[in-house]
Amino acid sequence: MNSALPIGVFDSGIGGLTVLRALMQRLPHEPFIYLGDTARLPYGTKTAGTVERYALQAVAELVRRGVKAVVIACNTASAAALPALAAAHPELPVIGVIEPGAAAAAAATRTGRIAVLATEGTVRGGAYQREILQRLPEARVQAIAATLFVALAEEGWTDGEVAAAAARRYLAPLFEDPDTAPDVLVLGCTHFPPLGEVIRAAAGAPVRIVDSAVTTADALAALLAAKSLAAASTGAGGVHCLVTDGVERFARIGPVFLGRSIAAASVERIDL
Amino acid sequence: MNSALPIGVFDSGIGGLTVLRALMQRLPHEPFIYLGDTARLPYGTKTAGTVERYALQAVAELVRRGVKAVVIACNTASAAALPALAAAHPELPVIGVIEPGAAAAAAATRTGRIAVLATEGTVRGGAYQREILQRLPEARVQAIAATLFVALAEEGWTDGEVAAAAARRYLAPLFEDPDTAPDVLVLGCTHFPPLGEVIRAAAGAPVRIVDSAVTTADALAALLAAKSLAAASTGAGGVHCLVTDGVERFARIGPVFLGRSIAAASVERIDL
Repeated sequence: MNSALPIGVFDSGIGGLTVLRALMQRLPHEPFIYLGDTARLPYGTKTAGTVERYALQAVAELVRRGVKAVVIACNTASAAALPALAAAHPELPVIGVIEPGAAAAAAATRTGRIAVLATEGTVRGGAYQREILQRLPEARVQAIAATLFVALAEEGWTDGEVAAAAARRYLAPLFEDPDTAPDVLVLGCTHFPPLGEVIRAAAGAPVRIVDSAVTTADALAALLAAKSLAAASTGAGGVHCLVTDGVERFARIGPVFLGRSIAAASVERIDL
Repeated sequence: MNSALPIGVFDSGIGGLTVLRALMQRLPHEPFIYLGDTARLPYGTKTAGTVERYALQAVAELVRRGVKAVVIACNTASAAALPALAAAHPELPVIGVIEPGAAAAAAATRTGRIAVLATEGTVRGGAYQREILQRLPEARVQAIAATLFVALAEEGWTDGEVAAAAARRYLAPLFEDPDTAPDVLVLGCTHFPPLGEVIRAAAGAPVRIVDSAVTTADALAALLAAKSLAAASTGAGGVHCLVTDGVERFARIGPVFLGRSIAAASVERIDL
């Protein structure tokens, strides 16, 4: 691997831009190439076999273009496809977002009660539950499929009455009994960070919110250092985006997640 | 074409079961084969070119299995793919849901003010607007992309506080001024009929709701009669379902739309 190559970031579509944002803040000299499989999103309601197949196609495309490491920014794909990706690309460092998120949650809890908010696929796969219990065997982990949060974030309805009512509906059962209420909430889907404040308000109790983007950025920095793959500190950084469906919608909705504007001309449409 | 063959019904996934329900009620002796492209849903946020490509693959699969006619139950696919489907299968009768829905809306309005609630793709394509204006040139048609309704219907949240707040947010601007408020609302997405009552309540004014499923069933009955393709009145009817992703979710969520239970064993998983 060549340290001058970019880092590939793969996501089912748009939400992974919250992870890219953290990666670019943590590693400003690294060049990134982001692939969002917008023609086939969302992954969260699909079976693990289908998600694995799509992830293999996407990472093969990143490898074809040349990358020194790959971050699987999508929680659902991290849960479903990491072993298959490692088997298909044994030389390529590949990291997902679930291990860093689980480690951060295990470190943050005081009571051992952790709730994971995620997509149907991530909840069903049980990867967060397993990873947290490996680090903190006495933890009590609940996982809630909060499907509607994906649509709310994509609609840009990250505050207001609809988002607040949806957050209360998902969270109220968790906080009904103060003796079993969690003290840590894991945002186990890249679409959820823009809803962080609404989620915190719906909890109605002091709670720490863990978003795996920042811990994933730390994990990537450590990996690059360990493998001597970090870019030179004179590197200009930057990102090139690839999407499998229209660039217009990506450029319009992406800024909600990336936290800055995206020029449509900087986005390339590809087929997988 | 052989009148004993089944009728193919194609949808992006699950919502088309609201159309299938109306077809089976109207034509109880006809056998149906339903193909839901659940691995790639939703279509509503994808570009017309991508939707056209997916629809061509799906209808080719139905033709391979043998069908005497095809109903495109998905509004987005009806808007994007009908011309390409007709060109690819010149002998096959293919009908969509938009023309019947537009005809019903034009017939139902008293004031000429019609609002279409649909997905982003359907609104952007403008097919409802064009079809209504062709029938009623003096109509004033507004089209609203109500993306969140898809997720609400799939989550089964078709009543309650979240659905009501979302419906108010989409509909309030339409009904602010009684002098411009529509008297007909077209449910221009197969996911929306389960939300009909919430939508009616949010309108806060007398309004007729047009759902193209019933008028599409009438159009299909007329087509079969005209082409002498109707099944014998002794036919047992029934449906065989094909899905491109897991059968479990389809069998679990489908009943919200079909109005009756679906046995997982009656659903076949295919690849497109």
